Amino acid sequence: MKDQPSPIRETDDDARKLARVLLRSARHAAIAVLDSETGFPFASRVLVATDIDGTPVILVSKLSAHTRALAKDSRASLLTGEPGKGDPLAHPRLTTQCLAEPVERSHAFYDRIRTRFLARHPKANLYVDFPDFLFFRLKPELGSLNGGFGRAYQLEGNDLIIQSAANEEIAACAAETVRDLVERHPDVAQTLAIRLNAPKSASWRICGIDPSGFDLISGDFLLRYEFECLAEEADHICSNISKTAYSIP
Amino acid sequence: MKDQPSPIRETDDDARKLARVLLRSARHAAIAVLDSETGFPFASRVLVATDIDGTPVILVSKLSAHTRALAKDSRASLLTGEPGKGDPLAHPRLTTQCLAEPVERSHAFYDRIRTRFLARHPKANLYVDFPDFLFFRLKPELGSLNGGFGRAYQLEGNDLIIQSAANEEIAACAAETVRDLVERHPDVAQTLAIRLNAPKSASWRICGIDPSGFDLISGDFLLRYEFECLAEEADHICSNISKTAYSIP
Repeated sequence: MKDQPSPIRETDDDARKLARVLLRSARHAAIAVLDSETGFPFASRVLVATDIDGTPVILVSKLSAHTRALAKDSRASLLTGEPGKGDPLAHPRLTTQCLAEPVERSHAFYDRIRTRFLARHPKANLYVDFPDFLFFRLKPELGSLNGGFGRAYQLEGNDLIIQSAANEEIAACAAETVRDLVERHPDVAQTLAIRLNAPKSASWRICGIDPSGFDLISGDFLLRYEFECLAEEADHICSNISKTAYSIP
Repeated sequence: MKDQPSPIRETDDDARKLARVLLRSARHAAIAVLDSETGFPFASRVLVATDIDGTPVILVSKLSAHTRALAKDSRASLLTGEPGKGDPLAHPRLTTQCLAEPVERSHAFYDRIRTRFLARHPKANLYVDFPDFLFFRLKPELGSLNGGFGRAYQLEGNDLIIQSAANEEIAACAAETVRDLVERHPDVAQTLAIRLNAPKSASWRICGIDPSGFDLISGDFLLRYEFECLAEEADHICSNISKTAYSIP
């Protein structure tokens, strides 16, 4: 008997880009964890955002089964990528295997993570400060991309992380950067949405920037745009965004 | 310090019915399994149908990570219930912890499962008979229903299984039962869709019946209706469906 041929294709930059977009454009995900009492694999739904380095972030209740599970065993995976119209398996999706790290209120990253999460999920303002809610950073270890029938790729955790010395500096001035950009170009988010063929909606806004790209949001729609090259400073992000919106080099 | 109050509500018939509808109306699900090499929890997407007793059924490639995982450890959970509009966490969803049993082509249930699966997923006709595709029945052991913020319930596996001596007999004559009903009432599926406030679509059809209810399908929409009481024979199903469509007692 012959061995089955490997169904895994060689990972290329297109696969890496697709995987990053699937992870960074998810408003929610299915999370798989190990049940804290039985070790059973347990799938549930969580809201997702990203930290400045692209690491996925979740905000969960300490009373929930997935939080109890992560407190006992930090291994988790996230399934992102929506099925859309037609055959659910024809649409690309990504499984990201992660190690979960709680981000307590005293943590150096806490304010940054809270700010970025709320920019994407403003309704979470209602409960983010409740004492029984907690953030986790889910550090990617491995990715399994299924780009549709017969298009499977394996990724390394580092393929999904933004490796940039500028991360912290950009995070520190992100709100100001976006505010200045919108002051100069009040139509920038709407123009980006049209240029990127986003669904028609009146209220697009930029809800996150990082060295690798930006996130646009309008109601239930979230759109991720990845730059050709990592930005090295906030000005570089602004010029990348302007170029995308107005083709200004 | 006081203990946290339990966030789990007492399970009532409304919760059981909601859970059954969430499981039986899913075209696809996130499945959580244990990675066959590392034991890591792994989430991926699968197409779902149900067997005649409501047990969820999946059709998977033997080359996929979830199939290799289930071959080694039969424990799995399914997340069903779509997020819909607005806050993804405001929509009800169900985690069903299951034990997976492969259904080989020689299995007594194989033809029944194949027929029911293809009635729901006609495009799977393209690959269902490929030698590397395999059905699993996922026998429910436990259910965790999240009916929206603060509305959590625990269910037993048996709450999600249709306990009826008539299952096999009804399965054997299901195709004929539906054909006869549609001959007598050519507009029955369309009328049901209107009565049940289904999305507008021209091509609704009944794609499954069982002692507990029926499934209506049209393109990407799948609608599950649960009867008030279990039907004891095929005629009883017909009269339940007619009553639902035309209010004929």
